[in-house]
This record gives sequence, structure tokens and C-alpha cells, in this order.
Amino acid sequence: MAAQQRSISVSEFFAKNRHLLGFDNKRKALLTAVKEAVDNSLDACEEAGILPELHVTLEQIGDDRWRVTVRDNGPGIPKGKVPSVFGRLLYGSKFHRLKMSRGQQGIGISAAGMYGLLTTGQPLRVVSRVSGSPACEMRLAIDTNANRPEVVADEVASVSWGHGTEVSIELEATYARGRQSVDEYVELTAIANPHAEIHYRPPSGPVAYRRAVSELPGETREIKPHPHGVELGTMMKMLKETNARRVSGFLTSEFCRISEVTASGICRAAKVGKGLSPRSVAPVPAEALYRAMQAAKIKAPPKDCLAPIGAEALLAGLLKGVKAEFYTATVRSPAVYRGNPFQIEVALAWGGNIGRDADEPQARLIRFANRVPLLYQPGSCCTHRAAADLKWNNYGMSQSKGSLPRAPLVVLVHMASVWVPYTSEGKESIADYDEIRKEIRLALGECGRRLGALLRRKKRRASQQRRRDVFGRYIGEVVEALTSIKPDVDVAELRGNLVAMAKSHTARADEEYDDHGRVLRAPDMPDTVVVERD
Amino acid sequence: MAAQQRSISVSEFFAKNRHLLGFDNKRKALLTAVKEAVDNSLDACEEAGILPELHVTLEQIGDDRWRVTVRDNGPGIPKGKVPSVFGRLLYGSKFHRLKMSRGQQGIGISAAGMYGLLTTGQPLRVVSRVSGSPACEMRLAIDTNANRPEVVADEVASVSWGHGTEVSIELEATYARGRQSVDEYVELTAIANPHAEIHYRPPSGPVAYRRAVSELPGETREIKPHPHGVELGTMMKMLKETNARRVSGFLTSEFCRISEVTASGICRAAKVGKGLSPRSVAPVPAEALYRAMQAAKIKAPPKDCLAPIGAEALLAGLLKGVKAEFYTATVRSPAVYRGNPFQIEVALAWGGNIGRDADEPQARLIRFANRVPLLYQPGSCCTHRAAADLKWNNYGMSQSKGSLPRAPLVVLVHMASVWVPYTSEGKESIADYDEIRKEIRLALGECGRRLGALLRRKKRRASQQRRRDVFGRYIGEVVEALTSIKPDVDVAELRGNLVAMAKSHTARADEEYDDHGRVLRAPDMPDTVVVERD
Repeated sequence: MAAQQRSISVSEFFAKNRHLLGFDNKRKALLTAVKEAVDNSLDACEEAGILPELHVTLEQIGDDRWRVTVRDNGPGIPKGKVPSVFGRLLYGSKFHRLKMSRGQQGIGISAAGMYGLLTTGQPLRVVSRVSGSPACEMRLAIDTNANRPEVVADEVASVSWGHGTEVSIELEATYARGRQSVDEYVELTAIANPHAEIHYRPPSGPVAYRRAVSELPGETREIKPHPHGVELGTMMKMLKETNARRVSGFLTSEFCRISEVTASGICRAAKVGKGLSPRSVAPVPAEALYRAMQAAKIKAPPKDCLAPIGAEALLAGLLKGVKAEFYTATVRSPAVYRGNPFQIEVALAWGGNIGRDADEPQARLIRFANRVPLLYQPGSCCTHRAAADLKWNNYGMSQSKGSLPRAPLVVLVHMASVWVPYTSEGKESIADYDEIRKEIRLALGECGRRLGALLRRKKRRASQQRRRDVFGRYIGEVVEALTSIKPDVDVAELRGNLVAMAKSHTARADEEYDDHGRVLRAPDMPDTVVVERD
Repeated sequence: MAAQQRSISVSEFFAKNRHLLGFDNKRKALLTAVKEAVDNSLDACEEAGILPELHVTLEQIGDDRWRVTVRDNGPGIPKGKVPSVFGRLLYGSKFHRLKMSRGQQGIGISAAGMYGLLTTGQPLRVVSRVSGSPACEMRLAIDTNANRPEVVADEVASVSWGHGTEVSIELEATYARGRQSVDEYVELTAIANPHAEIHYRPPSGPVAYRRAVSELPGETREIKPHPHGVELGTMMKMLKETNARRVSGFLTSEFCRISEVTASGICRAAKVGKGLSPRSVAPVPAEALYRAMQAAKIKAPPKDCLAPIGAEALLAGLLKGVKAEFYTATVRSPAVYRGNPFQIEVALAWGGNIGRDADEPQARLIRFANRVPLLYQPGSCCTHRAAADLKWNNYGMSQSKGSLPRAPLVVLVHMASVWVPYTSEGKESIADYDEIRKEIRLALGECGRRLGALLRRKKRRASQQRRRDVFGRYIGEVVEALTSIKPDVDVAELRGNLVAMAKSHTARADEEYDDHGRVLRAPDMPDTVVVERD
């Protein structure tokens, strides 16, 4: 038994567990392959400061067999790097840094190529051109036993474009429209990335998503880990590996938000000499240092490593045809989980045409992480759990335990982070960290309260409308009764006064609201106060 | 940008993504560490043909800091293998084979050690003794940059036991009782493994789960992949790597259920010479061979590679105190997904004391895979989706869309397979493969129909009880009316006859059922037919 012990290559592991990468069925396989290629392309363009222009093509080449091709106008990849980038799992530039980007694992595109190879036997094809050089074309297989690329063909290619990368993968897949489709993914991506131009060619005919803004999103900075949330063992490893010569230098250079003064304070509290060599700190003082660092007051991580997308504009874009009655959105301040800064933004749209056709409308949750739409596994997503755990009945909506509210509601949640903790390598949903769930809950609560205020107002208005109806019904009879007692009364004036009284007692019945739930000036009621949104 | 491209070690990857391994929070971390150690221990004992005796100890050694120790009476691990088994991710004997076992990835226990190291800085401690040799004690850290074990200490240990392995991990964790706790996990494990003796020492005091049967579960055979479900690319890779000299030999030796005759037929259909060297088969004929293999009629995989646990006995064990009114269970025949045989068994328990205290009882789902209880991530589990997708209203229960039925019901699902496709390396839920979901649905449907038949019977009984009440209410008046018309009638006889008529017209009102829903002979009704369970 012991003799059979041997090591497992990471490609073998993921080939056998390809559902972990998002390749559990043919329909999802198509989406995952497109998604990995598009995410890479957008990242490459943005990092090079290029406004992205993507060509995404789906071609059917047999029963359940498709070719996915994604081309970008990014900087291109130097020829020597191409095999490892596309033919090796766990290889890349994004893992060893803390920076907001779509890719982070160094798995995605190689895994898509490996899935293609597994299911069709066809190697992945890359054409890449760095500005000023000729384009190279390579066909790459993965040697899964060794997790190494195998270059099947390597040629000079002639292309019409100056720089960029084109990836083609032949894979077993099926194409279907509707929810969770490639169509939906491309559309959501275009809306969340208005700076990108996407030419999409599905079998049903080409669709062009034109650029809506011609500026790249604010550049985000790479940062060092935040001291709160780093783990003891990780800090001990960092002590061994740092280039800093003194503990104080270690603290200020390996973490963000630690100044010289803070570093001295931490060393003093831990009783560790700040001039000591980091490598020579023994486990016991290391733990003291760690505890002192956790206890120290340290500023929240810098904001400029994160770029929210503007949830409200995004939601309005998403709903396009569907006009809601009420919109609201909020952006939380950055927070930290395990040393990684992250930021939550949430938008709600309610009423109007939303869920108009459903018997009992159920809220819909739309999820994004670092501008990438998440289409699968909502049930295991932190966003879903936060939304389902919220007590929506506090905001005037009904809800079954553990479900989203029964209401004509669309909820959008975006998590921006230097490291998004996905629940699987397929990057389909966000892991349920307490700190993240808490931020989502607070953001949802803030938006929920605003919606709740509107719903209460609408309820009061409805009750005043009913009261006014009752007044209206009896004013005629009251006037008649009065004239029979006192025949010389001015009927018209009496009626007019009574109507005015009824109106002023039920002023709220005339309230109207804008699409942020603010009370608009009611036409005939000069005394109506404009209430600011809370 | 391209210059920063570099490879990522699998330990670095999982250290950063430790939630993938089941270490997302402190409470779950404790459970995951225990689970990985216990799963390994049970596997080791069973493979060596030893009746397992486990000692599981939880000790609190600080705020949020615990020591987990698991000792087994397995064969022990030879000293030279210890560092790789416990100090390296993706290393083991279970990945490169198809055999039903708890562990399969070669990640679990090393990952638990790595989590301990990350959070407390303390290396994992192993004491292992192979029969006849002295015990060795090692303290192991993982060098995450290289995914290699680092032996911190290596000594001869003196222990009182003859053979076995003891693992201790110090980790950041919290202990809580109740659902999803270590307590629940150990209890479910003991019930699903009645051949194991488990001495469990949580902080609340020791609990001994005694052996209920003194025979090991039937030994399961290691098998070759089944030809249906293997992928084209995988087959092409197998062609290159096989030791067989001829294509026909390749087919019969690398797959299960392919006889000489079938192999010849496949070669003929594919127009590939059966005497050809497998290595020399070009891509196009390889694809023809693949298609012919998929089209060929091939027997289902052998049954003896799988061992169901006996779902009904298991469920009865689980519910112990809670007496249900109705039990049913079914075991499906083995089926195949992606070449891997698997088998589903399902049990239901309904009514009685189940959900008696809840206002609106909701069905509870209990999940097992290869005898291991699954406690987390029910929402993303194939079992949950199958159960939520089933139309339970066909069986007389109400249900919200996408939820389990609202009924006093416990549903148990066990998947036995030579390779369980988990949705994450933490092995918390089963991936949603169509073939697996279908089998679960069929098994649930079969049990659901039996429950539905009982519920219909109970409904008819209730309606006949109401009818009998109505008869009873009017018989007195009818007798009075008749005597006033015909005073010489025998009142007692008339009343007796009418009561007997009413009784026989509402015979079902007396029906009683056993706990499998079968109709028991109703006491005073000699004409009641005993209906066999469908």
C-alpha cells in the first residue's frame, strides 16, 4: 500500500476534477472557456493601458463540438512566455501580488485548453504579436503527467493587427441561449466594462457592444498585505523570507499602513529589538510580535487599490428595457479579510415592470466580482447567503426562511478585492468569509432601509387615499343633511370647504415619488414638504 | 508584465485559497482537520483488513487554539514515507486508481497540517509504528514555496500500542456543539461505520462509540475505467502510455468490461487494425476507435467495486430517539459518469415525531459519500438539487420552487463511487453531474412514490372516517323515524344492521399501517385485503 504512494501533478488533479474548474457539463464548458479567455484579455489590455477591443467568436464544428476564439488588442505575449502561460496550470503573474484583477490563479486559460485537449484531442492554438515583431502562432498541448506545455507546432503567422493575442480552443460543448449562457455573460461583461468594445459572434449572428466611455477605469495600485488579518504562520514565513535587515524595516516594508512610529511601538509592545535581524526572531518572540501587531491601531488599507464600478449605473444598464419604480445604491468603505482589502457595492431596483409577469415575483440576485459576472453556483455564494439572511420583512417585504424576498426586486452585489476568495477554481461564487458577509449585509441593509422607507410611505399614501374616498362618499350626504336643517346655506361653498378639508387631512394621498423614493412636490398642495432621502 | 510570470506551487495556491480545503472559518477548520485525519485512519485500517479502533481527542490550548489528535490501530506508515504523506499536497496512493475509499486526492491531511502551521506556526506531529518496528515520531512543516516537507524533528518514540498512526495538529479553531460540529461528524461517522470503534474526547467529556458489527464492510475491488464516459483526449493519452502491444490488448487491458470479442468488433467498426501498435494510432483513426467504443454495447461496470451502506438501517440509527411513522429505502443499480461507476442509495423517514416541534416542518437532507458524512455546502450539492427539483407535490407534499418539501421528512442520500466528484477540495458536496443527479432523482422518486401511496391511503382513510361520523350522527334519527312509521320494528337489530352497513361502507377508516406503509389487517374487518407495498 505504502509503495503505491506517489505525487500527483496539478494537471492530472484538475483533469480528473475538471468540474472544479467549471467544466462539469457541456453548456457550462463553453461559458467557462469564453470567460477565461475574455477575463485574460481585459486584464492584459488594462494593465498595458490600452482600451480593450475584443472579438469573441463561437463556431460549431460538429455534434457537441465548438471552437471558441477570443482576440484582443492587448500588448501581446513574448514568444518565449506563450507555452507556459497557455500550457501549464498554476503559472502566471497575478498570483504573487495583491492587485485587483480578473484573473488571479494562473489556472483558467490553460485549464480551458486542457479541457479542449481532453475532450477533442485538439491542442490549443495561440497567435500572439508584440508590437513591432512578427506574430507567432503556436499549437500547445499539456503534458498532464508533468504539468508542462508540449509545443505541437510553432510558426510565424501573418496577421492584419499590430499587437494582441488570439486564442482558439476546440472543445466538447453545447450552446444555448438564455440564463447562464455565453450570451448573458458577454452582455453583462459589456455593461460592467463600458470602456471595452466587444464584437461577439454567436451562431445567431454578430452583436457589437460599442464602447460607452473612452477612458480606462481608474488604475488600481498593487499593495502589500494589511497587518490585521495576516496569520501567525504566514508572518513567521515572511520573517524568514524578507530582504529587510531589521525587524522595524520588515514591518514597514512588507505590510501596508505601518509607519516607522507604529513599527517601533509594535516592537516595544512585543519586547522584540527593532534592530534585530528578522531571520533571527525565534518562534516565541515572533508570536509576541504578531500579537502586538494585531493589537496595534493601524489605519484601514488604502482605497486606491480598489475600483468600484458604480453599481447604480450598472444596474440601470442591466435593466435597460425593464423600467423600475425605485433605484438605490451604496458603496461601502474598503474593509479587510485575512489581510486583503475589499469593497462591497450594492444596488437595488424595485417595482415598475420588474417581475410584472410573474404570479409571485421573487427577488433576483445579480453578482459581480472584480467586474466579472458570476453566473453559476449562487447557492454557495456569500452574496446569496447575506441576501437570504437579511430580515427583509423589516423593510416591508415577505420572505421564506433562507430565501430571497418575495418582491419585484433586483439586487446587484459587486465585490472588488485584491484577492477574491472564490469557492472553487472555476471562480463561480464568493466564499463565505464572515467579514465579507458582514459588509454585504450592511450594504444590503442600507439600501433595504431606503426601499423600506418608500414602501412605508406608499402604504401611508394608500391608507390616506382610502380615507379620502370615504370622505368623498359622505360629503354629498353631509351637505344634503345640513341644507335640510339650515336651508339658507351656500351649498357650493359648503361642499367646497368640506372637499378642501378632506384634501388637506389626506394630503399624503397626492404624494408622488421620484425613482429614488424622494417625495416630489404634490401639484395642488403648496404645503407639502419635500422630504430628503435618508 | 510578462517578466513577472512564474509558476505557483500547489501549497502556495492552497495556502492562499485555504477555504477551498474547508478552512474558511475557525469552527469549520476544527471539523475539517478531524475529518481528514479520521477518513485517512478508517481507509488505512480497512485496506489492511483491520477492524478500526480510533481515538479522537480535542484539547483547548489557548484562546481559539486547539490541538486535534487522532490515533488509529492501522498498519502504520513506513518511516521513509511519513514526510511526503503528511507534508506535501497532492501526494498519495489513492489518486491513481479507481477504488471506493474516503480519501482520493492526496491533499487532506497535509492541508490540515499546513493550516495548523499557517495559523499557529506549529508543525504537525506524527507518531507511526509499523508492526515489529519501533515507533518513530516526526514533526513536519511544509515548505509552501516548493510543496516539500521539512522535517523539524525526527525521534524514536516509545508507545504502548503495537501498530498504528497518531497525528496531532495545533490549529486556530473554535469548538461548538450542534449542527455541523465535530460532535455531529463523529456521531454520523460512527453510525455509518458500525464496524469502527471510536473513542471521542471532546471538551465536554469522553464518548465511546462501540463497535456494532465485528466484520469489515465487504472489500471493494479496484477497477479499470469503463469505456463509456472516457473522453477522447484521455483515450488518446492512454494509447500513448499503455504497455499493451496491440490495440485489441489495449482495449481489453486498460478498460473494464471489454472482452476479446468486443475489442475485435470495435476495431472492425473503427477500421483500425487490431494488431496495430497503440502508439502508432494517428488522431483520426483514434477518434474513429473512440466513436466505435462509445457505440459498442458494453455491460455496465462490475458491482463489486462498490459497497452501499444500507441506507434504511443507517437512517433508523440516525433517528434513534426520533420515532418516524414510515420508513422506506432503495438502492439503485450501479451507473456510470465519465467512466466512473457509482451507486446511489436513498432512505426516507416520514411523520411520527419528526418535525413535531416545528410550526411548519421542513424536510431535512442528510448526505453521505463513501461512508463519509457531508456537513457543509448543501446548497451546491447534487443531492440537494435533485431533492429540490423533484416534484414532491406528486407525492402529496407541498413545496416552494427550488426547495425541499414542507413535510415532517428526513431524506438520506448516499453516493458510493470509485471517484466522488466533490465541488471543492474540502470534499463538502457532490458536483452536479447529470448522470448522478438523474440516479438520485430516480431513487428519490421511487421512495417518494411509496410515501405518496401511504399519504393517499391516509387521506382516503380520513375521508372515510368523516363519512362514518356522518353516518353515525344520522343513524339514531333514521331509526327513530322508521319506528314512528313502523312501530313493530326491532330497534336494536335495525340499529345494529345500519351500524354494520356504515362500517363496511367505510372499512378503510379502520386501516392501520406498519412503518413501511403496508396495510395491517384491520381488527374487526375480516374482509380487509392486505396490500403489498408497491
